[in-house]
Amino acid sequence: MPKNRSMVHMSGPDMVAGNGLLNRRIFLSGGAAVTAAVGGTALPGAALAGETLSVEPWMKLPGLGFVGYGQPSNYEVKVARTWNTAPGTTGTGAARTPHHLLDGTITPNGLHFERSHSGIPDINPDTHRFLVHGRVKRPLIFTLESLERYPRESRVAFLECGGNGQLLYQKEPAPVGVQAIHGLVSCAEWTGVKLSLLLQEAGVDPKAKWILAEGADAAGMSRSIPVAKAMDDALIALYQNGERVRPSNGYPMRLLLPGYEGNMNVKWLRRIKLTEGPTMTKDETSKYTITLPDGKSLQFVLPQEGKSVITQPSPGLAMKGPGLYEISGLAWSGYGRITKVEVSADGGKSWAPAALQPPVLSKALTRFRIPWRWNGGPAVLQSRATDETGYVQPTREKMIAARGNRTIYHANAITTWGVSDKGEVKHVYA
Amino acid sequence: MPKNRSMVHMSGPDMVAGNGLLNRRIFLSGGAAVTAAVGGTALPGAALAGETLSVEPWMKLPGLGFVGYGQPSNYEVKVARTWNTAPGTTGTGAARTPHHLLDGTITPNGLHFERSHSGIPDINPDTHRFLVHGRVKRPLIFTLESLERYPRESRVAFLECGGNGQLLYQKEPAPVGVQAIHGLVSCAEWTGVKLSLLLQEAGVDPKAKWILAEGADAAGMSRSIPVAKAMDDALIALYQNGERVRPSNGYPMRLLLPGYEGNMNVKWLRRIKLTEGPTMTKDETSKYTITLPDGKSLQFVLPQEGKSVITQPSPGLAMKGPGLYEISGLAWSGYGRITKVEVSADGGKSWAPAALQPPVLSKALTRFRIPWRWNGGPAVLQSRATDETGYVQPTREKMIAARGNRTIYHANAITTWGVSDKGEVKHVYA
Repeated sequence: MPKNRSMVHMSGPDMVAGNGLLNRRIFLSGGAAVTAAVGGTALPGAALAGETLSVEPWMKLPGLGFVGYGQPSNYEVKVARTWNTAPGTTGTGAARTPHHLLDGTITPNGLHFERSHSGIPDINPDTHRFLVHGRVKRPLIFTLESLERYPRESRVAFLECGGNGQLLYQKEPAPVGVQAIHGLVSCAEWTGVKLSLLLQEAGVDPKAKWILAEGADAAGMSRSIPVAKAMDDALIALYQNGERVRPSNGYPMRLLLPGYEGNMNVKWLRRIKLTEGPTMTKDETSKYTITLPDGKSLQFVLPQEGKSVITQPSPGLAMKGPGLYEISGLAWSGYGRITKVEVSADGGKSWAPAALQPPVLSKALTRFRIPWRWNGGPAVLQSRATDETGYVQPTREKMIAARGNRTIYHANAITTWGVSDKGEVKHVYA
Repeated sequence: MPKNRSMVHMSGPDMVAGNGLLNRRIFLSGGAAVTAAVGGTALPGAALAGETLSVEPWMKLPGLGFVGYGQPSNYEVKVARTWNTAPGTTGTGAARTPHHLLDGTITPNGLHFERSHSGIPDINPDTHRFLVHGRVKRPLIFTLESLERYPRESRVAFLECGGNGQLLYQKEPAPVGVQAIHGLVSCAEWTGVKLSLLLQEAGVDPKAKWILAEGADAAGMSRSIPVAKAMDDALIALYQNGERVRPSNGYPMRLLLPGYEGNMNVKWLRRIKLTEGPTMTKDETSKYTITLPDGKSLQFVLPQEGKSVITQPSPGLAMKGPGLYEISGLAWSGYGRITKVEVSADGGKSWAPAALQPPVLSKALTRFRIPWRWNGGPAVLQSRATDETGYVQPTREKMIAARGNRTIYHANAITTWGVSDKGEVKHVYA
């Protein structure tokens, strides 16, 4: 490779687990440490600059003018959601976030995943109403304008569809990547009104232990939620990453239940009814239950359990020759904060701790990173998350042993990417 | 007001500063505290629900289908940047973020402010090159592909144009609002490669104390930056809120210098040259210097000083009758973390501490909130930020006394909104 540089090398002592995993701190401590690490394998390396820079066409003419609301570069059209719809429908299905093409932890609003049960309603915010009723002293009805007057708070939270990762229940590894398997999770900064404040104003009957939340879509998507969660950290979200919640995410208002199953975070929120018990809606009986091998079903499995996935490298992103890579991915838990993500390059035989990108926030996506020296041979990449409750992400084997594969929900098992000696990355079972 | 509710009232003891400012914690402690606070003035209040909910048109038909890259609701077209351009140009000028219509701390990418010196170049990422040269052992040239192989990190950072707030130097208060006055600051999660890693790979000559950073726009916008900053927390940013940096923000790569003057964060980054001293480019001599009353200029005033502004209420958002409001706004400092924001409703005679929305991150926008009981009379609203170095945002009087008004840069004075007894909100000088 003429002119190709190999300036930063890695020595043996930095190896912290099998098949090339390196100490997560080698790049954090600055110059001395990296220089000291010179030894074995190279950083990808810039080319030595022998050439002069050419003057490109865009340097010779004034550029484009301003617009009120900007868009990504035309060169990034491939960075898009993919979706599948139920037969005979247009808007019933799910659209997935392309995590293999993103970095950081915030999902831009245009790429946040969607799950819709009857398409995206085009709601006029001026005529939309939100009702709080049922077992309360004072039933209340809110316009968007009246709700806007309430105190607000912001929090960064992941949302994950209960069906995310369902391909892991299949007997054979689906020949797809992170977008198809785990694209139904995203993360945003949500801002809204604490639901507890509205419930308190309505006056909750002590007998009311559940709420029913209903959407204004044609499906009338609705779920039952314990009052305890509603009084804890639930928000009526009005803003998503600074701007109004997107139509695909519930405009003009949605329920946000940090850490809970996606569809409980009811979009296009129209009504909250206080009830003694759960309402047993179609969306929590015919769907969103976990059917076990014996045919019985677990219902109201509410938080999304601890989980992680490597996003780079992953299928669709081929390796480009031996040398140093960064393995990077996302971890999250509906129980709270991620405390540890371990990475394996040898299919789980040995593990090394990845660096967690601060700030590590409760019930939010957490980015992990670890340097890896790929020797050009086969490798089997995995990540394993642990959260603050001590919950450890299970192997697929363990998940299937516990739940069988009659369900499609809450698939949080370790995902495995196989790297071939040609540098291809494939979904495999380890 | 028939059916209008006044469920949550505020008593005298919760007053913490003049003209209606209330304890920032009244909504944090939950039900008991708010109930105990019953007394004086009302929350805006929902209407009592006597009516049944009507079935709206969007509930009767399936909604819209999926798209690869989503957009805001059509009802939100007014939430847009506004801009001004230099006479005879299209893309030379600045476009401003509508902070009065946003909430939270993340600016969505479509609304991030822009300052362009010759429009937005339409760069082909495959042919774009980034050169590191000058006083280095090994000049290096990077393609986007080679740069992508390096380890990355993410951080949330504000960016602020050096000219943001310049209207505060005018002798009379400009009859405009937060977007026109302070719209040249935004905040995003940026992800990229640490510049220190690349400089270390190139091998910096100890005599090199500055770098020159140059953009690939037609203006060749370029600035000199101390090497110490480049080695500290500078990033070559590739991603903005998860996705590739937007064309208007430097696609395919920009320099990110957390806390430093906006245009030093060179967009469309093409070249970094290590030099002994500053290069004295047109962009740091004819512009971006602070000319004092005696005609001498301060050059290389690099960090943006501590600052804050109330975004709600603010001009364009009229008050809707006496009662409880939340005063909310943004604070930031190029020196580090915001430690305190105080709010006054009586033009600076008395101050009350606002709540700071966690996580409070260094060199990032911080959202502050405080409840306010507007009695329907005139009020004069101000906010004052303090950062972790102890720096306190100055009054306008103090800023003008120190700098005069021959400059347009680094205007970080306290901004004042006057509220009339009709509920109009106007920019005033206090």
